Amino acid sequence: MKVLIVFAHPEPGSLNGGLRDVAVRSLEAQGHEVRVSDLYAQRWKSDVDRADFPSLPADTRLAPAAASKQAFEAGTLTVDVKGEIEKLLWADVLILQFPLWWFSMPAILKGWVDRVFAYGFAYGVGEHSDKRWGDRYGEGTLAGKRAMVIVTAGGWQEHYSARGINGPIDDLLFPINHGILYYPGYEVLPPFVVYKSDKLDGAAYQAVAESLRERMRTLATTPPIPYRRQNGGDYLIPGMQLRAGLEYSAASGFALHVERAESHGSRAEPDAVRPPTDVRAATA
Amino acid sequence: MKVLIVFAHPEPGSLNGGLRDVAVRSLEAQGHEVRVSDLYAQRWKSDVDRADFPSLPADTRLAPAAASKQAFEAGTLTVDVKGEIEKLLWADVLILQFPLWWFSMPAILKGWVDRVFAYGFAYGVGEHSDKRWGDRYGEGTLAGKRAMVIVTAGGWQEHYSARGINGPIDDLLFPINHGILYYPGYEVLPPFVVYKSDKLDGAAYQAVAESLRERMRTLATTPPIPYRRQNGGDYLIPGMQLRAGLEYSAASGFALHVERAESHGSRAEPDAVRPPTDVRAATA
Repeated sequence: MKVLIVFAHPEPGSLNGGLRDVAVRSLEAQGHEVRVSDLYAQRWKSDVDRADFPSLPADTRLAPAAASKQAFEAGTLTVDVKGEIEKLLWADVLILQFPLWWFSMPAILKGWVDRVFAYGFAYGVGEHSDKRWGDRYGEGTLAGKRAMVIVTAGGWQEHYSARGINGPIDDLLFPINHGILYYPGYEVLPPFVVYKSDKLDGAAYQAVAESLRERMRTLATTPPIPYRRQNGGDYLIPGMQLRAGLEYSAASGFALHVERAESHGSRAEPDAVRPPTDVRAATA
Repeated sequence: MKVLIVFAHPEPGSLNGGLRDVAVRSLEAQGHEVRVSDLYAQRWKSDVDRADFPSLPADTRLAPAAASKQAFEAGTLTVDVKGEIEKLLWADVLILQFPLWWFSMPAILKGWVDRVFAYGFAYGVGEHSDKRWGDRYGEGTLAGKRAMVIVTAGGWQEHYSARGINGPIDDLLFPINHGILYYPGYEVLPPFVVYKSDKLDGAAYQAVAESLRERMRTLATTPPIPYRRQNGGDYLIPGMQLRAGLEYSAASGFALHVERAESHGSRAEPDAVRPPTDVRAATA
């Protein structure tokens, strides 16, 4: 397979840098082709602004979505953005790797999404009408590919558990896993999360690294999070609300949008309400 | 009161720019002092990197949290970051205003948080031990102040409703409202959300503007979202999991961390499970 890792940490010698190298070596040892977008090393430009749309007339107001659509269709996106789009089309698997800063991705990675996920490429794809609200959430340009995040968090796993004060990690990552990755078509694998990342000693690091190698070995076979497909019949169109009676008995919030396990043949845990988070890394 | 608006849209002539001006004029007409951090106009630097820590020796690995702690304590944070910290200490109310891009804030605003919310200022405050896990979630440097977000979304309100495909807007904003604003001590007001932001005609815009003026007039009196205080007795220490029996019967996920309305004297809606989202703007 072809794997793209988008890496967003400023320090090559960090835990994240070490885990990236573990992932790359493991993937290459299996014969996969790997490319890395090292955003800090590339001096990635984070902010959407007029410079992204050189063909926009100087006296025209910048409407980012409209400008993105026009530039994507005309082929006038900037060279750096075109380069990342080419990598996304090349890769069978996308991995986003980042430290969890303020419960989300670092600005440089958000800026990669904001700029690379262009209108017509990652959104605004397909028919939009009263009958069909585009190709998204399970369909779209990147359908047929897989994606996952590798995340390090300074806090404890308990703090990110179902009753933990920060909120469940799967809910905190929902805007990324569902909103950024599933939206343009990726099948999204459970996240690989490392907790207490500032306190990893040698033995714990080795255990985390081995868990990551195992995830890299099972990249093609790990069952994805069974998010519901927008156009699979579960949602009313055009209001896009989940039809009555499809949820688990007590499910609410983000959990609504994950299918029952039994309706998804490849799931391993028949009773799990939430998508499985990788806990081996956390308990290592 | 003193109000700081942190504004993150690249186009002054946008809907966001118009609404910012509505907010500023409304606040000033009431006699409040207003300052605006216009991040694009300031050419805000978004990415945390070595340049943020000029006193870090060149041969030392950059560990962002540790470097932030050291620089905050030594007074060696960069001038731009110190300027924003000074504004936050000055303001009684903080307003973050931004378009919802990929279900979160634009990179430039995330970068403002990543860089300005320094260790020792916005996190890592207070005693950290087996008995007390710091001053956060209701306590901290910014306790006693209020905060809210003003957000524009291109999609429909239904798509962000309790059963909407994008996930409920209050859950999508939880990492910001709870994780970024409540964490360092702010009382967080319900968000002001404008839906279908690309389709607002003149009459609808006027209705949205009037709703926003009303929110600006009630900034001091609007009941905050009743998030649970970390050190108020609801959470086990140090695991920080919510004690059994405190949730609503069917609540799960992020909704766990909002108190029952009746335990919070200032709430208006006794039966509301979720924090009230401003729907007037959305239906305008």
